[in-house]
Amino acid sequence: MGTVTLDSVVITPLKRIATGSGDVMHGMKAIDSGYAGFGEAYFSWIDHGAVKAWKKHSRMTMNLLVPMGSVRFVFTLDASDAFREIVIGESHYSRLSVPPGIWFGFQGVGASGNLVLNIASIGHDPAEVERLDAGALNFDWD
Amino acid sequence: MGTVTLDSVVITPLKRIATGSGDVMHGMKAIDSGYAGFGEAYFSWIDHGAVKAWKKHSRMTMNLLVPMGSVRFVFTLDASDAFREIVIGESHYSRLSVPPGIWFGFQGVGASGNLVLNIASIGHDPAEVERLDAGALNFDWD
Repeated sequence: MGTVTLDSVVITPLKRIATGSGDVMHGMKAIDSGYAGFGEAYFSWIDHGAVKAWKKHSRMTMNLLVPMGSVRFVFTLDASDAFREIVIGESHYSRLSVPPGIWFGFQGVGASGNLVLNIASIGHDPAEVERLDAGALNFDWD
Repeated sequence: MGTVTLDSVVITPLKRIATGSGDVMHGMKAIDSGYAGFGEAYFSWIDHGAVKAWKKHSRMTMNLLVPMGSVRFVFTLDASDAFREIVIGESHYSRLSVPPGIWFGFQGVGASGNLVLNIASIGHDPAEVERLDAGALNFDWD
Protein backbone atom coordinates (compact mmCIF):
# COMPACT_ATOMS: atom_id res chain seq x y z
CA MET A 1 0.00 0.00 0.00
CA GLY A 2 2.67 2.58 0.95
CA THR A 3 1.79 5.91 2.51
CA VAL A 4 -1.58 7.39 1.63
CA THR A 5 -1.43 10.89 0.16
CA LEU A 6 -3.99 13.08 -1.60
CA ASP A 7 -2.60 11.71 -4.87
CA SER A 8 -3.83 8.28 -3.75
CA VAL A 9 -7.31 9.32 -4.91
CA VAL A 10 -7.46 8.09 -8.51
CA ILE A 11 -9.73 9.59 -11.19
CA THR A 12 -10.72 7.23 -14.01
CA PRO A 13 -12.71 8.69 -16.92
CA LEU A 14 -15.56 6.38 -17.94
CA LYS A 15 -17.55 5.81 -21.10
CA ARG A 16 -21.10 6.97 -21.68
CA ILE A 17 -22.64 5.14 -24.62
CA ALA A 18 -25.65 6.57 -26.45
CA THR A 19 -28.29 3.99 -27.44
CA GLY A 20 -31.24 6.03 -28.73
CA SER A 21 -33.52 4.99 -25.86
CA GLY A 22 -31.28 5.99 -22.94
CA ASP A 23 -27.52 6.02 -22.44
CA VAL A 24 -25.48 3.23 -20.90
CA MET A 25 -22.84 4.48 -18.45
CA HIS A 26 -19.93 2.32 -17.43
CA GLY A 27 -19.31 1.96 -13.71
CA MET A 28 -16.77 -0.55 -12.46
CA LYS A 29 -15.47 -3.94 -13.43
CA ALA A 30 -13.82 -6.44 -11.10
CA ILE A 31 -10.80 -6.37 -13.44
CA ASP A 32 -10.37 -2.57 -13.09
CA SER A 33 -7.26 -1.43 -11.26
CA GLY A 34 -9.17 0.53 -8.60
CA TYR A 35 -11.35 -2.43 -7.64
CA ALA A 36 -10.74 -3.47 -4.02
CA GLY A 37 -13.43 -6.11 -3.52
CA PHE A 38 -17.19 -5.89 -3.09
CA GLY A 39 -18.72 -5.40 0.33
CA GLU A 40 -21.69 -3.14 -0.38
CA ALA A 41 -23.10 -0.74 -2.95
CA TYR A 42 -25.38 2.12 -1.87
CA PHE A 43 -26.67 5.43 -3.17
CA SER A 44 -26.48 8.87 -1.57
CA TRP A 45 -28.49 11.80 -2.87
CA ILE A 46 -27.00 15.20 -2.08
CA ASP A 47 -29.07 18.34 -2.44
CA HIS A 48 -27.85 21.41 -4.30
CA GLY A 49 -25.45 23.27 -1.99
CA ALA A 50 -25.79 20.73 0.82
CA VAL A 51 -22.64 19.31 2.43
CA LYS A 52 -21.99 15.86 3.89
CA ALA A 53 -18.67 16.05 5.76
CA TRP A 54 -16.32 14.90 7.27
CA LYS A 55 -15.75 11.15 7.34
CA LYS A 56 -12.68 8.94 7.29
CA HIS A 57 -12.67 5.19 6.79
CA SER A 58 -9.95 3.06 8.34
CA ARG A 59 -10.66 -0.03 6.21
CA MET A 60 -13.11 0.81 3.38
CA THR A 61 -11.94 1.62 -0.12
CA MET A 62 -14.64 3.65 -1.88
CA ASN A 63 -15.30 3.69 -5.60
CA LEU A 64 -17.52 6.69 -6.26
CA LEU A 65 -19.73 7.35 -9.29
CA VAL A 66 -22.10 10.23 -10.07
CA PRO A 67 -24.50 9.11 -12.82
CA MET A 68 -26.81 12.09 -12.32
CA GLY A 69 -26.01 15.71 -11.56
CA SER A 70 -22.63 16.88 -10.36
CA VAL A 71 -20.85 16.49 -7.01
CA ARG A 72 -17.82 18.24 -5.48
CA PHE A 73 -15.64 15.91 -3.44
CA VAL A 74 -13.02 17.31 -1.07
CA PHE A 75 -10.18 15.27 0.44
CA THR A 76 -7.65 16.03 3.14
CA LEU A 77 -5.17 14.24 5.36
CA ASP A 78 -4.74 14.35 9.10
CA ALA A 79 -2.95 17.43 10.41
CA SER A 80 -2.98 19.06 7.02
CA ASP A 81 -4.33 22.31 5.66
CA ALA A 82 -4.04 20.93 2.13
CA PHE A 83 -7.29 20.00 0.41
CA ARG A 84 -7.86 18.31 -2.91
CA GLU A 85 -11.11 19.10 -4.74
CA ILE A 86 -12.54 17.00 -7.54
CA VAL A 87 -15.89 17.54 -9.27
CA ILE A 88 -17.41 14.57 -11.10
CA GLY A 89 -20.81 13.98 -12.64
CA GLU A 90 -22.69 13.74 -15.86
CA SER A 91 -20.45 16.23 -17.67
CA HIS A 92 -17.17 14.89 -16.24
CA TYR A 93 -18.20 11.28 -16.03
CA SER A 94 -15.49 9.50 -14.06
CA ARG A 95 -14.91 7.12 -11.17
CA LEU A 96 -13.06 8.17 -8.00
CA SER A 97 -11.15 5.42 -6.20
CA VAL A 98 -10.47 6.46 -2.60
CA PRO A 99 -8.33 4.29 -0.32
CA PRO A 100 -8.88 4.26 3.46
CA GLY A 101 -7.17 6.84 5.65
CA ILE A 102 -8.34 10.02 3.89
CA TRP A 103 -10.84 12.55 5.29
CA PHE A 104 -13.54 13.38 2.75
CA GLY A 105 -16.69 15.37 2.32
CA PHE A 106 -18.98 16.14 -0.60
CA GLN A 107 -21.37 18.81 -1.77
CA GLY A 108 -24.20 18.82 -4.30
CA VAL A 109 -23.44 21.03 -7.32
CA GLY A 110 -26.27 20.29 -9.75
CA ALA A 111 -29.56 22.12 -9.33
CA SER A 112 -31.90 19.20 -10.05
CA GLY A 113 -30.62 16.12 -8.23
CA ASN A 114 -27.16 14.74 -7.51
CA LEU A 115 -26.71 11.01 -7.04
CA VAL A 116 -23.60 9.23 -5.71
CA LEU A 117 -23.06 5.48 -5.93
CA ASN A 118 -20.41 4.07 -3.62
CA ILE A 119 -19.13 0.61 -4.55
CA ALA A 120 -17.53 -0.10 -1.20
CA SER A 121 -14.94 -2.78 -0.50
CA ILE A 122 -16.58 -3.71 2.82
CA GLY A 123 -20.08 -3.47 4.22
CA HIS A 124 -21.13 -0.61 6.46
CA ASP A 125 -19.34 -0.83 9.82
CA PRO A 126 -19.59 2.15 12.21
CA ALA A 127 -16.45 0.94 14.00
CA GLU A 128 -14.24 1.81 11.03
CA VAL A 129 -15.64 5.34 10.46
CA GLU A 130 -14.38 8.52 12.10
CA ARG A 131 -16.48 11.67 11.84
CA LEU A 132 -15.96 15.40 12.23
CA ASP A 133 -18.43 18.26 11.91
CA ALA A 134 -18.41 20.05 8.55
CA GLY A 135 -16.93 23.14 10.23
CA ALA A 136 -14.21 21.28 12.13
CA LEU A 137 -11.63 21.54 9.35
CA ASN A 138 -10.30 24.71 7.79
CA PHE A 139 -12.24 24.41 4.52
CA ASP A 140 -14.76 26.91 3.19
CA TRP A 141 -17.64 25.09 1.50
CA ASP A 142 -19.33 28.31 0.32
CA MET B 1 -29.62 -24.25 -8.91
CA GLY B 2 -32.67 -26.27 -9.94
CA THR B 3 -34.97 -25.31 -12.78
CA VAL B 4 -35.35 -21.60 -13.48
CA THR B 5 -38.94 -20.34 -13.46
CA LEU B 6 -40.47 -16.86 -13.44
CA ASP B 7 -40.62 -17.18 -9.65
CA SER B 8 -36.82 -17.32 -9.67
CA VAL B 9 -36.84 -13.51 -10.00
CA VAL B 10 -36.66 -12.31 -6.40
CA ILE B 11 -37.93 -8.90 -5.22
CA THR B 12 -36.24 -7.52 -2.10
CA PRO B 13 -37.63 -4.28 -0.62
CA LEU B 14 -34.84 -1.92 0.37
CA LYS B 15 -34.48 0.94 2.83
CA ARG B 16 -34.42 4.60 1.93
CA ILE B 17 -33.03 6.66 4.81
CA ALA B 18 -33.73 10.40 5.06
CA THR B 19 -30.76 12.51 6.19
CA GLY B 20 -31.90 16.12 5.74
CA SER B 21 -29.39 16.82 2.97
CA GLY B 22 -30.25 13.96 0.61
CA ASP B 23 -31.49 10.41 1.20
CA VAL B 24 -29.29 7.33 1.45
CA MET B 25 -30.69 4.33 -0.46
CA HIS B 26 -29.51 0.83 0.26
CA GLY B 27 -28.38 -1.23 -2.73
CA MET B 28 -26.71 -4.57 -2.18
CA LYS B 29 -24.41 -6.18 0.33
CA ALA B 30 -22.13 -9.12 -0.35
CA ILE B 31 -23.87 -10.92 2.52
CA ASP B 32 -27.34 -10.54 0.90
CA SER B 33 -28.97 -13.75 -0.30
CA GLY B 34 -29.31 -12.56 -3.92
CA TYR B 35 -25.63 -11.69 -4.24
CA ALA B 36 -23.93 -13.86 -6.87
CA GLY B 37 -20.48 -12.28 -7.06
CA PHE B 38 -19.24 -9.03 -8.54
CA GLY B 39 -18.17 -8.84 -12.16
CA GLU B 40 -19.33 -5.38 -13.22
CA ALA B 41 -21.68 -2.58 -12.25
CA TYR B 42 -23.14 -0.27 -14.91
CA PHE B 43 -25.99 2.17 -15.37
CA SER B 44 -28.69 2.23 -18.04
CA TRP B 45 -30.96 5.21 -18.55
CA ILE B 46 -34.30 4.38 -20.13
CA ASP B 47 -36.46 7.14 -21.58
CA HIS B 48 -40.15 7.49 -20.77
CA GLY B 49 -42.04 4.91 -22.85
CA ALA B 50 -38.88 3.54 -24.46
CA VAL B 51 -38.29 -0.22 -24.48
CA LYS B 52 -35.04 -2.18 -24.29
CA ALA B 53 -35.89 -5.83 -25.11
CA TRP B 54 -35.28 -8.77 -25.33
CA LYS B 55 -32.11 -10.21 -23.84
CA LYS B 56 -31.25 -13.45 -22.10
CA HIS B 57 -28.03 -14.16 -20.24
CA SER B 58 -26.68 -17.69 -20.07
CA ARG B 59 -24.25 -16.99 -17.19
CA MET B 60 -24.89 -13.54 -15.69
CA THR B 61 -26.99 -13.04 -12.58
CA MET B 62 -28.33 -9.49 -12.53
CA ASN B 63 -29.15 -7.47 -9.45
CA LEU B 64 -31.22 -4.51 -10.61
CA LEU B 65 -31.86 -1.24 -8.79
CA VAL B 66 -33.79 1.87 -9.84
CA PRO B 67 -32.70 4.79 -7.65
CA MET B 68 -34.40 7.38 -9.86
CA GLY B 69 -37.72 7.24 -11.68
CA SER B 70 -39.64 4.04 -12.26
CA VAL B 71 -39.01 1.08 -14.60
CA ARG B 72 -41.23 -1.77 -15.76
CA PHE B 73 -39.36 -5.06 -16.08
CA VAL B 74 -40.90 -7.98 -17.99
CA PHE B 75 -39.66 -11.55 -17.77
CA THR B 76 -40.51 -14.67 -19.75
CA LEU B 77 -39.20 -18.17 -20.33
CA ASP B 78 -38.42 -19.96 -23.56
CA ALA B 79 -41.43 -21.35 -25.38
CA SER B 80 -43.78 -19.61 -23.01
CA ASP B 81 -46.61 -17.12 -23.43
CA ALA B 82 -46.43 -16.35 -19.71
CA PHE B 83 -44.93 -13.01 -18.75
CA ARG B 84 -44.13 -11.62 -15.33
CA GLU B 85 -44.17 -7.85 -14.91
CA ILE B 86 -42.54 -6.01 -12.01
CA VAL B 87 -42.33 -2.23 -11.61
CA ILE B 88 -39.64 -0.88 -9.29
CA GLY B 89 -38.32 2.58 -8.65
CA GLU B 90 -38.30 5.44 -6.23
CA SER B 91 -41.82 4.73 -4.95
CA HIS B 92 -41.39 0.92 -4.81
CA TYR B 93 -37.75 0.91 -3.91
CA SER B 94 -36.59 -2.71 -4.22
CA ARG B 95 -33.89 -4.88 -5.73
CA LEU B 96 -34.60 -7.48 -8.41
CA SER B 97 -32.33 -10.54 -8.43
CA VAL B 98 -32.52 -12.25 -11.83
CA PRO B 99 -30.72 -15.56 -12.44
CA PRO B 100 -29.47 -16.51 -15.90
CA GLY B 101 -31.78 -18.25 -18.36
CA ILE B 102 -34.68 -15.77 -18.33
CA TRP B 103 -35.67 -13.48 -21.20
CA PHE B 104 -36.15 -9.89 -20.01
CA GLY B 105 -36.94 -6.44 -21.25
CA PHE B 106 -37.61 -3.11 -19.60
CA GLN B 107 -39.46 0.12 -20.23
CA GLY B 108 -39.15 3.61 -18.78
CA VAL B 109 -42.21 4.62 -16.74
CA GLY B 110 -41.20 7.88 -15.08
CA ALA B 111 -41.55 11.11 -17.04
CA SER B 112 -38.32 12.77 -15.94
CA GLY B 113 -35.52 10.20 -16.04
CA ASN B 114 -35.33 6.50 -15.20
CA LEU B 115 -32.03 5.02 -14.08
CA VAL B 116 -31.18 1.32 -13.72
CA LEU B 117 -28.08 0.01 -11.96
CA ASN B 118 -27.13 -3.57 -12.74
CA ILE B 119 -24.75 -5.20 -10.27
CA ALA B 120 -23.75 -8.07 -12.51
CA SER B 121 -22.10 -11.29 -11.39
CA ILE B 122 -19.78 -11.30 -14.43
CA GLY B 123 -18.36 -8.64 -16.72
CA HIS B 124 -19.92 -7.87 -20.08
CA ASP B 125 -19.44 -10.81 -22.47
CA PRO B 126 -21.37 -10.77 -25.78
CA ALA B 127 -20.91 -14.54 -26.03
CA GLU B 128 -23.30 -15.18 -23.14
CA VAL B 129 -26.10 -12.87 -24.35
CA GLU B 130 -28.96 -13.85 -26.67
CA ARG B 131 -31.09 -11.13 -28.20
CA LEU B 132 -34.50 -10.86 -29.84
CA ASP B 133 -36.26 -7.83 -31.30
CA ALA B 134 -38.78 -6.16 -29.01
CA GLY B 135 -41.61 -7.38 -31.24
CA ALA B 136 -40.40 -10.97 -31.49
CA LEU B 137 -42.32 -12.17 -28.42
CA ASN B 138 -46.05 -12.00 -27.88
CA PHE B 139 -45.98 -9.10 -25.41
CA ASP B 140 -47.68 -5.74 -25.88
CA TRP B 141 -45.48 -2.95 -24.48
CA ASP B 142 -48.08 -0.23 -25.12
